[in-house]
Amino acid sequence: MLVAGCPLCDGPGGREVFRGAKLRVIHAAEAGFPAFYRVVWTDHVAEWSELAPADRALCMEAVAVVEQCLRDALSPAKINLAALGNMVPHLHWHVIARFEWDSRFPSPVWAAAQRAADPQREQAIEHQLAALEREMIGRLATRSF
Amino acid sequence: MLVAGCPLCDGPGGREVFRGAKLRVIHAAEAGFPAFYRVVWTDHVAEWSELAPADRALCMEAVAVVEQCLRDALSPAKINLAALGNMVPHLHWHVIARFEWDSRFPSPVWAAAQRAADPQREQAIEHQLAALEREMIGRLATRSF
Repeated sequence: MLVAGCPLCDGPGGREVFRGAKLRVIHAAEAGFPAFYRVVWTDHVAEWSELAPADRALCMEAVAVVEQCLRDALSPAKINLAALGNMVPHLHWHVIARFEWDSRFPSPVWAAAQRAADPQREQAIEHQLAALEREMIGRLATRSF
Repeated sequence: MLVAGCPLCDGPGGREVFRGAKLRVIHAAEAGFPAFYRVVWTDHVAEWSELAPADRALCMEAVAVVEQCLRDALSPAKINLAALGNMVPHLHWHVIARFEWDSRFPSPVWAAAQRAADPQREQAIEHQLAALEREMIGRLATRSF
Protein backbone atom coordinates (compact mmCIF):
# COMPACT_ATOMS: atom_id res chain seq x y z
CA MET A 1 0.00 0.00 0.00
CA LEU A 2 1.21 3.51 -0.83
CA VAL A 3 0.06 6.68 0.93
CA ALA A 4 -0.11 9.98 -0.96
CA GLY A 5 1.82 12.73 0.80
CA CYS A 6 4.30 10.30 2.35
CA PRO A 7 7.78 11.25 1.09
CA LEU A 8 8.85 7.58 1.01
CA CYS A 9 5.75 6.58 -0.96
CA ASP A 10 5.92 9.56 -3.33
CA GLY A 11 9.62 9.22 -4.19
CA PRO A 12 12.77 7.20 -3.56
CA GLY A 13 13.82 9.42 -0.63
CA GLY A 14 17.45 9.61 -1.69
CA ARG A 15 19.82 8.39 -4.38
CA GLU A 16 18.58 4.91 -5.23
CA VAL A 17 21.23 2.20 -5.09
CA PHE A 18 19.09 -0.92 -5.28
CA ARG A 19 15.42 -1.65 -5.81
CA GLY A 20 13.72 -4.93 -5.02
CA ALA A 21 10.00 -5.71 -4.87
CA LYS A 22 9.83 -5.51 -1.07
CA LEU A 23 12.48 -2.93 -0.27
CA ARG A 24 15.01 -0.51 -1.71
CA VAL A 25 18.38 0.84 -0.61
CA ILE A 26 19.12 4.53 -0.91
CA HIS A 27 22.14 6.65 -0.16
CA ALA A 28 21.13 9.52 2.11
CA ALA A 29 22.71 12.94 1.60
CA GLU A 30 23.31 13.67 5.28
CA ALA A 31 26.08 16.25 5.68
CA GLY A 32 29.03 14.96 7.66
CA PHE A 33 28.10 11.29 7.29
CA PRO A 34 29.21 10.21 3.83
CA ALA A 35 28.34 6.52 4.26
CA PHE A 36 24.72 6.88 5.37
CA TYR A 37 22.32 4.45 3.71
CA ARG A 38 18.67 3.62 4.26
CA VAL A 39 16.81 0.39 3.70
CA VAL A 40 13.27 1.51 2.89
CA TRP A 41 10.39 -0.96 3.02
CA THR A 42 8.22 -0.53 -0.09
CA ASP A 43 4.83 -0.83 1.62
CA HIS A 44 3.72 2.00 3.84
CA VAL A 45 4.07 0.41 7.26
CA ALA A 46 4.79 2.54 10.31
CA GLU A 47 5.98 0.10 12.95
CA TRP A 48 8.34 -2.86 12.87
CA SER A 49 5.82 -5.11 14.59
CA GLU A 50 3.32 -4.54 11.77
CA LEU A 51 5.47 -6.60 9.41
CA ALA A 52 5.05 -10.37 9.21
CA PRO A 53 7.92 -12.34 10.80
CA ALA A 54 9.21 -13.53 7.41
CA ASP A 55 9.28 -9.93 6.15
CA ARG A 56 11.09 -8.80 9.29
CA ALA A 57 13.74 -11.46 8.74
CA LEU A 58 14.07 -10.52 5.08
CA CYS A 59 14.34 -6.83 5.88
CA MET A 60 17.07 -7.41 8.46
CA GLU A 61 19.02 -9.56 6.01
CA ALA A 62 19.08 -6.59 3.63
CA VAL A 63 20.22 -4.40 6.52
CA ALA A 64 22.95 -6.95 7.26
CA VAL A 65 24.14 -6.95 3.62
CA VAL A 66 24.36 -3.15 3.56
CA GLU A 67 26.15 -3.17 6.91
CA GLN A 68 28.61 -5.87 5.80
CA CYS A 69 29.46 -3.96 2.63
CA LEU A 70 30.18 -0.82 4.67
CA ARG A 71 32.33 -2.80 7.09
CA ASP A 72 34.26 -4.57 4.33
CA ALA A 73 34.97 -1.43 2.32
CA LEU A 74 35.39 1.23 4.99
CA SER A 75 36.37 -0.48 8.27
CA PRO A 76 34.27 1.99 10.27
CA ALA A 77 34.63 2.37 14.04
CA LYS A 78 31.01 1.22 14.36
CA ILE A 79 27.85 0.70 12.39
CA ASN A 80 24.72 2.39 13.71
CA LEU A 81 21.28 0.99 12.90
CA ALA A 82 18.00 2.72 13.65
CA ALA A 83 14.35 2.70 12.70
CA LEU A 84 12.81 5.82 14.20
CA GLY A 85 10.20 7.29 11.85
CA ASN A 86 8.93 10.02 14.16
CA MET A 87 8.94 12.47 11.26
CA VAL A 88 8.31 10.04 8.41
CA PRO A 89 6.36 7.07 9.80
CA HIS A 90 7.16 4.79 6.86
CA LEU A 91 9.46 1.94 7.87
CA HIS A 92 13.08 2.68 6.97
CA TRP A 93 16.31 1.55 8.55
CA HIS A 94 19.21 3.92 8.86
CA VAL A 95 22.52 2.12 8.28
CA ILE A 96 25.34 4.50 9.10
CA ALA A 97 29.09 3.95 9.08
CA ARG A 98 30.59 5.88 11.99
CA PHE A 99 34.18 7.01 12.35
CA GLU A 100 36.15 8.31 15.33
CA TRP A 101 36.76 11.53 13.41
CA ASP A 102 33.11 12.26 12.55
CA SER A 103 31.61 15.31 14.23
CA ARG A 104 29.42 13.34 16.69
CA PHE A 105 31.31 10.15 17.50
CA PRO A 106 30.81 8.39 19.90
CA SER A 107 27.39 10.06 20.28
CA PRO A 108 24.55 9.25 17.91
CA VAL A 109 24.47 11.26 14.66
CA TRP A 110 21.45 13.15 16.02
CA ALA A 111 23.31 14.52 19.06
CA ALA A 112 25.16 17.83 19.28
CA ALA A 113 28.46 18.15 17.40
CA GLN A 114 31.59 17.47 19.45
CA ARG A 115 34.14 18.57 16.88
CA ALA A 116 34.40 20.18 13.46
CA ALA A 117 33.64 18.17 10.33
CA ASP A 118 36.61 16.80 8.39
CA PRO A 119 35.80 17.38 4.69
CA GLN A 120 39.00 15.70 3.52
CA ARG A 121 38.26 12.44 5.29
CA GLU A 122 34.63 12.64 4.21
CA GLN A 123 35.75 12.99 0.61
CA ALA A 124 38.05 10.00 0.93
CA ILE A 125 35.00 7.95 1.94
CA GLU A 126 32.90 9.39 -0.87
CA HIS A 127 35.47 8.23 -3.39
CA GLN A 128 34.94 4.65 -2.24
CA LEU A 129 31.16 4.63 -2.53
CA ALA A 130 30.89 3.72 -6.21
CA ALA A 131 32.90 0.51 -5.81
CA LEU A 132 31.21 -0.27 -2.49
CA GLU A 133 27.76 0.12 -4.05
CA ARG A 134 28.62 -2.09 -7.02
CA GLU A 135 29.54 -4.79 -4.52
CA MET A 136 26.36 -4.09 -2.49
CA ILE A 137 24.14 -4.39 -5.57
CA GLY A 138 25.83 -7.66 -6.47
CA ARG A 139 25.24 -9.14 -3.04
CA LEU A 140 21.64 -7.90 -2.82
CA ALA A 141 20.93 -9.36 -6.27
CA THR A 142 21.58 -12.90 -5.00
CA ARG A 143 18.29 -12.90 -3.04
CA SER A 144 14.69 -11.86 -3.63
CA PHE A 145 14.49 -8.60 -1.76
CA MET B 1 31.67 -15.36 24.79
CA LEU B 2 31.88 -12.77 27.57
CA VAL B 3 34.41 -9.95 27.75
CA ALA B 4 35.67 -8.66 31.11
CA GLY B 5 35.25 -4.92 31.44
CA CYS B 6 32.22 -4.80 29.14
CA PRO B 7 29.27 -3.43 31.15
CA LEU B 8 26.82 -5.70 29.32
CA CYS B 9 28.98 -8.79 29.99
CA ASP B 10 29.72 -7.85 33.61
CA GLY B 11 26.10 -7.10 34.61
CA PRO B 12 22.53 -6.96 33.37
CA GLY B 13 22.85 -3.29 32.33
CA GLY B 14 19.51 -2.31 33.80
CA ARG B 15 16.50 -3.72 35.61
CA GLU B 16 16.13 -7.22 34.23
CA VAL B 17 12.65 -8.05 32.94
CA PHE B 18 13.32 -11.29 31.09
CA ARG B 19 16.29 -13.59 30.66
CA GLY B 20 16.62 -16.22 27.96
CA ALA B 21 19.69 -18.19 26.92
CA LYS B 22 20.40 -16.00 23.89
CA LEU B 23 19.14 -12.62 25.01
CA ARG B 24 17.63 -10.64 27.85
CA VAL B 25 15.28 -7.69 28.13
CA ILE B 26 16.05 -4.87 30.52
CA HIS B 27 14.25 -1.71 31.48
CA ALA B 28 16.60 1.24 31.08
CA ALA B 29 16.48 4.07 33.60
CA GLU B 30 16.68 6.91 31.07
CA ALA B 31 15.28 10.10 32.52
CA GLY B 32 12.32 11.46 30.59
CA PHE B 33 11.66 8.21 28.71
CA PRO B 34 9.77 5.94 31.10
CA ALA B 35 9.14 3.15 28.57
CA PHE B 36 12.70 2.57 27.40
CA TYR B 37 13.70 -1.09 27.10
CA ARG B 38 16.75 -2.84 25.73
CA VAL B 39 17.06 -6.25 24.14
CA VAL B 40 20.61 -7.32 24.98
CA TRP B 41 22.25 -10.19 23.13
CA THR B 42 24.00 -12.48 25.63
CA ASP B 43 27.17 -13.10 23.63
CA HIS B 44 29.59 -10.25 23.24
CA VAL B 45 29.08 -9.37 19.58
CA ALA B 46 29.70 -5.83 18.34
CA GLU B 47 27.98 -5.68 14.98
CA TRP B 48 24.63 -6.92 13.73
CA SER B 49 26.24 -8.61 10.72
CA GLU B 50 28.36 -10.76 13.04
CA LEU B 51 25.27 -12.71 14.10
CA ALA B 52 24.13 -15.74 12.11
CA PRO B 53 20.94 -15.12 10.09
CA ALA B 54 18.87 -17.36 12.38
CA ASP B 55 20.08 -15.41 15.42
CA ARG B 56 19.30 -12.12 13.71
CA ALA B 57 15.76 -13.30 13.01
CA LEU B 58 15.36 -14.52 16.60
CA CYS B 59 16.70 -11.28 18.02
CA MET B 60 14.32 -9.18 15.94
CA GLU B 61 11.37 -11.33 17.01
CA ALA B 62 12.20 -10.46 20.61
CA VAL B 63 12.42 -6.80 19.61
CA ALA B 64 9.01 -7.15 17.93
CA VAL B 65 7.48 -8.69 21.07
CA VAL B 66 8.80 -5.87 23.26
CA GLU B 67 7.58 -3.32 20.73
CA GLN B 68 4.13 -4.90 20.45
CA CYS B 69 3.70 -4.92 24.24
CA LEU B 70 4.59 -1.23 24.39
CA ARG B 71 2.16 -0.44 21.59
CA ASP B 72 -0.65 -2.49 23.12
CA ALA B 73 -0.32 -1.04 26.60
CA LEU B 74 0.72 2.54 25.94
CA SER B 75 -0.43 3.51 22.42
CA PRO B 76 2.73 5.58 21.88
CA ALA B 77 3.03 8.09 19.05
CA LYS B 78 5.89 5.99 17.68
CA ILE B 79 8.30 3.24 18.61
CA ASN B 80 11.99 3.94 18.07
CA LEU B 81 14.45 1.09 17.50
CA ALA B 82 18.21 1.47 17.42
CA ALA B 83 21.39 -0.56 17.72
CA LEU B 84 24.23 1.94 18.04
CA GLY B 85 26.89 0.66 20.43
CA ASN B 86 29.44 3.41 19.90
CA MET B 87 30.04 3.59 23.65
CA VAL B 88 29.27 -0.02 24.55
CA PRO B 89 30.02 -2.20 21.51
CA HIS B 90 28.00 -5.17 22.74
CA LEU B 91 24.89 -5.76 20.64
CA HIS B 92 21.80 -4.25 22.25
CA TRP B 93 18.61 -2.90 20.74
CA HIS B 94 16.97 0.15 22.18
CA VAL B 95 13.17 -0.15 22.08
CA ILE B 96 11.68 3.17 23.08
CA ALA B 97 8.05 4.26 23.28
CA ARG B 98 7.84 7.88 22.16
CA PHE B 99 5.10 10.36 22.94
CA GLU B 100 4.22 13.75 21.48
CA TRP B 101 4.71 15.27 24.93
CA ASP B 102 8.19 13.84 25.58
CA SER B 103 10.99 16.40 25.71
CA ARG B 104 12.51 15.47 22.31
CA PHE B 105 9.62 14.35 20.13
CA PRO B 106 9.69 14.19 17.11
CA SER B 107 13.49 14.26 17.28
CA PRO B 108 15.45 11.20 18.40
CA VAL B 109 15.91 10.84 22.16
CA TRP B 110 19.58 11.76 21.72
CA ALA B 111 18.84 15.19 20.23
CA ALA B 112 18.51 18.45 22.13
CA ALA B 113 15.40 18.97 24.27
CA GLN B 114 12.56 20.87 22.60
CA ARG B 115 10.35 21.27 25.65
CA ALA B 116 10.32 20.64 29.38
CA ALA B 117 9.79 17.15 30.75
CA ASP B 118 6.31 16.24 31.97
CA PRO B 119 6.80 14.29 35.23
CA GLN B 120 3.06 13.71 35.66
CA ARG B 121 2.66 12.02 32.29
CA GLU B 122 5.89 10.10 32.82
CA GLN B 123 4.55 8.81 36.13
CA ALA B 124 1.30 7.73 34.49
CA ILE B 125 3.39 5.58 32.12
CA GLU B 126 5.50 4.22 34.98
CA HIS B 127 2.36 3.00 36.72
CA GLN B 128 1.56 0.82 33.72
CA LEU B 129 4.96 -0.87 33.45
CA ALA B 130 4.36 -3.69 35.94
CA ALA B 131 1.31 -5.00 34.08
CA LEU B 132 2.95 -4.39 30.72
CA GLU B 133 6.02 -6.35 31.77
CA ARG B 134 3.97 -9.28 33.08
CA GLU B 135 2.39 -9.48 29.64
CA MET B 136 5.81 -9.13 27.98
CA ILE B 137 7.30 -11.95 30.04
CA GLY B 138 4.34 -14.14 29.17
CA ARG B 139 4.73 -13.54 25.45
CA LEU B 140 8.52 -13.96 25.51
CA ALA B 141 8.15 -17.24 27.42
CA THR B 142 6.30 -18.84 24.50
CA ARG B 143 9.54 -19.08 22.48
CA SER B 144 13.15 -20.10 23.08
CA PHE B 145 14.88 -16.76 23.33
